[in-house]
This record gives sequence, C-alpha cells and structure tokens, in this order.
Amino acid sequence: MTASDWLHEQFDPTGSAIGFRVVRKLDQVQSPFQKIEIYESTDWGNVMLIDGAMMVTTRDNFLYHEMMSHPALFTHPDPKRVVIIGGGDCGTLREVLRHPGVETAVQCDIDEQVTRMAEKYFPELCESNGDPRAQILFDDGIAYMANCAPGSVDVVIVDSTDPVGPAEGLFNKAFFESCFRALRDDGILVQQSESPLALLDLIREMRAEMGKAGFTSFQTLPFPQPCYPTGWWSCTLARKSGGFDFREEDARAKAFETKYYSAAIHKGAQALPPFVARALDA
Amino acid sequence: MTASDWLHEQFDPTGSAIGFRVVRKLDQVQSPFQKIEIYESTDWGNVMLIDGAMMVTTRDNFLYHEMMSHPALFTHPDPKRVVIIGGGDCGTLREVLRHPGVETAVQCDIDEQVTRMAEKYFPELCESNGDPRAQILFDDGIAYMANCAPGSVDVVIVDSTDPVGPAEGLFNKAFFESCFRALRDDGILVQQSESPLALLDLIREMRAEMGKAGFTSFQTLPFPQPCYPTGWWSCTLARKSGGFDFREEDARAKAFETKYYSAAIHKGAQALPPFVARALDA
Repeated sequence: MTASDWLHEQFDPTGSAIGFRVVRKLDQVQSPFQKIEIYESTDWGNVMLIDGAMMVTTRDNFLYHEMMSHPALFTHPDPKRVVIIGGGDCGTLREVLRHPGVETAVQCDIDEQVTRMAEKYFPELCESNGDPRAQILFDDGIAYMANCAPGSVDVVIVDSTDPVGPAEGLFNKAFFESCFRALRDDGILVQQSESPLALLDLIREMRAEMGKAGFTSFQTLPFPQPCYPTGWWSCTLARKSGGFDFREEDARAKAFETKYYSAAIHKGAQALPPFVARALDA
Repeated sequence: MTASDWLHEQFDPTGSAIGFRVVRKLDQVQSPFQKIEIYESTDWGNVMLIDGAMMVTTRDNFLYHEMMSHPALFTHPDPKRVVIIGGGDCGTLREVLRHPGVETAVQCDIDEQVTRMAEKYFPELCESNGDPRAQILFDDGIAYMANCAPGSVDVVIVDSTDPVGPAEGLFNKAFFESCFRALRDDGILVQQSESPLALLDLIREMRAEMGKAGFTSFQTLPFPQPCYPTGWWSCTLARKSGGFDFREEDARAKAFETKYYSAAIHKGAQALPPFVARALDA
C-alpha cells in the first residue's frame, strides 16, 4: 500500500460508497464477533472499520457522538442513570459523562476488542473511561437490557453497528420492550437510525417496532456524518410519555465545550425536511 | 461494466471519496471546456460527472438546487431579476422560476453541452426552460457579470463547479466586484461554498474575497448533499448591506412544493455548528 491508496466502503443497501485516502493499515484483529481494522488516513486521522464498514474516524466522530448523547440528555428533565448499548469506542460514554448530573453511565458492548482498539488508536475517545461514574462491561447488550431492574434507567443509548450481524437483535420489538421496561416513566431511548435520505424505510420500521414495544412518541434528528453512507445520518429518540421540548436554557448554559452540538443545532435538527416528515408520517 | 460496478470520485482536497453503484455508462462528450459523462446507477437514478467529479444525481439533486435558490429568494425583499452563473443542468433555474414574483431569470453557463446532456438525462430539471421568464445563454459568466448594467440585478446565484478549471475565475475578488456592481443595493450574491467540514479554509477565503469586493455581511448555510465530497455541503450568501432575516411568513406560505427546503429548515440552517462558527469568525 502506498501513500496514494484509497479505502472504500461500498454499502449495498444504499448503492453508494464512501472512502478515505489512507497511508497504511495500522492493525487488524478478528474478534469472536467481527473483524476490526485500523487504518491511518491522510486527512481524517485514524479510521476504524468493522467487517468492512467505516465506524469512526478521528476527524469526524464528534458529529455522531455529540448527537447520540446531548439531544437526549438535554431532553430528559434530570438524567442520572444512563446505559449505552454498544458504543465500544467509548466516544458516546465520554460525551455522556460531560453532564455533571449523570451519576452512573454503563457501557455494555459485546466486543471487548473494539474498546481495546479504541484505547490504542482513538485514546481521546477513552479519556473518561477512568471516571468513577463509568462502568464498562463486555457483554451481550440484549441480555443486559432484559435483566435490568424495571424503571431503573433514565436514558438508554443504542450506539450500535448496522442492523446486520451482531447488532441485528438491537432493532426489534423484543429488545425495545426490554428498554421500555428498564426505563423510568420519563425515560428516553435513543437509537442510531441510519441515513434519512436513503434508508427512510428502515427508520419508519424502527419507529413502528418501538411503538409496538409501548413507546408513544418519536423524534428523528438528522446530522452530517461523512464517514457513514451518504454522509447524512440520524438518531431517533423514543419516549414512554411526553414530548420533545428540551432544556434549551440548560443546553445554552452548558459548562462543557462541543464542536457540533449546540442549543441552536438541537432546535434546528428538530425541523425535519418535508420529504422526511412526509415519509415518517405515512 | 456489469451490474455490480462501482463508480468512485476520489477528491484530493478532502482526502475522501464518494461513489455509486452503476449499471452502465449512458453517454460521454468532450466539450471545448470539459469531459461530461452520464451513468445509470442502481439506486440514484442517472449520475452526471464533469471531469470525473460528481455533479448531479436524479435522486439527491433537490437538496442542492433548493438550497442554492430558496434561502436567497426568501431573504431578498422582492426578487424580480435573477442571474444564475453556471447552473447548466437547469435545476437551479427551475427552482428560481417557482417564485411567482421573479420577472426574469438569466442562466449563463459557458458550456452548452451540460444543458444538452441535462435535457436528455435529467429532463425534469429542464422542465421550466420554456418559461417565458427564462433566458438561457451559453457564454462566459465572468464576462456576462462584468458587462451587466450597474444596479440591475436582485440576486446572483453562482452555481459553479469546484474552483479549478473553468470555474476558477468565479471565486475571486474581480468576479465578486462585477457581481457587487451589477446588484441593486438590497441585492444578494449566493455562491456554492463546498464542504463545511473539510473545506472551511476555502469558505473563509471566499468570504474574504467577497469582503474585498465590497460585500458587508455573509451567511453560510450548510446542507446535506450525498453526491458531493463528505456528503455535507454549503452555500454562502453575501449582501451589500443589511442582514439575513428572511421572509419567514412568505416561506411558510409558499405556493409551491419543496422536498428539502422549508421555513424551518432555512431557520435551522442559520444555526452554524460551533466549530464552523469559530472557524469563520477567526
């Protein structure tokens, strides 16, 4: 491999590809669950792939991690107990722990190797792993949620890979029922929900499954994400009850820095493009 | 080429690539200015490339065309005379002509072949070309703007390729001075301004050149655009005087349909992510 090599991910479900110019492969491991590869790129820092799919780059992961955490945490009135299912790169955990009111944040990823690779190649994402409020488990997230004490969690963040392979079981009614039961009445479930342009059917089906599990209101927030197919991604929030007014004053007065998230960005993301709104209403 | 071929654009300035799964090449022409290719894709309709760069797909061009036109036209108090420099695929022209108050819309693209290819492979973009308010010229946009009568234009939209090759002269002070002179005092210049993640320096330099030409206020609006590098793009508005409050009530009450643009999306796009705001203020 030379300095001018390009690494592409060709994503069949959208018929589109993304890629980065890479300098060299830094590492590779075959875990019991998936193949994890790390490349050094010319412009995007390090890049992690899982089973050939781009997961994280040094340069653009802030978009995803900030949007998976702060909108939900500033919507919940007082989030104290947070559970992250997946999220082995620890970037979402870091963002969650920026909220001083959070008392415990459990991260449960099935694959320890993802975290080991993140510690080595994305150390900045792991900088809060030693926080006494953090609990890092390597276990089956489906079982973890099924065994959670009812009404014990404020926010569940499902920071998973695509709904194929190990993450398939994180997108159906049975899993969402476990989340529903584990959440307090004012709790919020957040799930990464793929591309709002190319995968609208998936978002609609996910919301339908959440509805069958008992959730009553949904909010899909789009955001840019260059390392994911189409460069445009989304998260979907679901509530047992209540709407999605957020603590705008608190978001504006937050004591920590963000690169993408702000109260104004949060508000702006709530305005769905007409074609997305029409498709999700249908 | 088989049904499973992938067409990639490797974009050196961002070190990132985009691609589409294609069925076959439909056409190719070498004009006096550039090479134009048309592919049929599996999921994105037809795809036009100019000198190897993705320009338009059937599926996602609405994002770009709506954002290049409606924010400026709903910011200007009463746009009657619009000039589009470039825009040979005619998609921006179509959006401009949706505004009933527009009396003339001149489209000046140097390359007639772009329009001929659009008529053939993107006929929906050309459906307003016969509108009596439309004037389609194949000429040098730099000369056109230099020769415009002073104070004769309400909105100039620069819908160009990247600032290399034929479009290089559309990103500097001399061209912006012609636009400044041609615009009425409440006029607005809009320029496509590349990726807000990966090409922030370019946006900052463009705004500096616009400032040297006399423009006093600027607004960069990001939007998703899967067929352009990083999947996240922007347009930049510049005014001779005045700010960027827009005719929100008119935008909300508009009598035409849009897929991406809405008053709420317009408002949301005005909230720049903190890292973009910081870079552009610097």
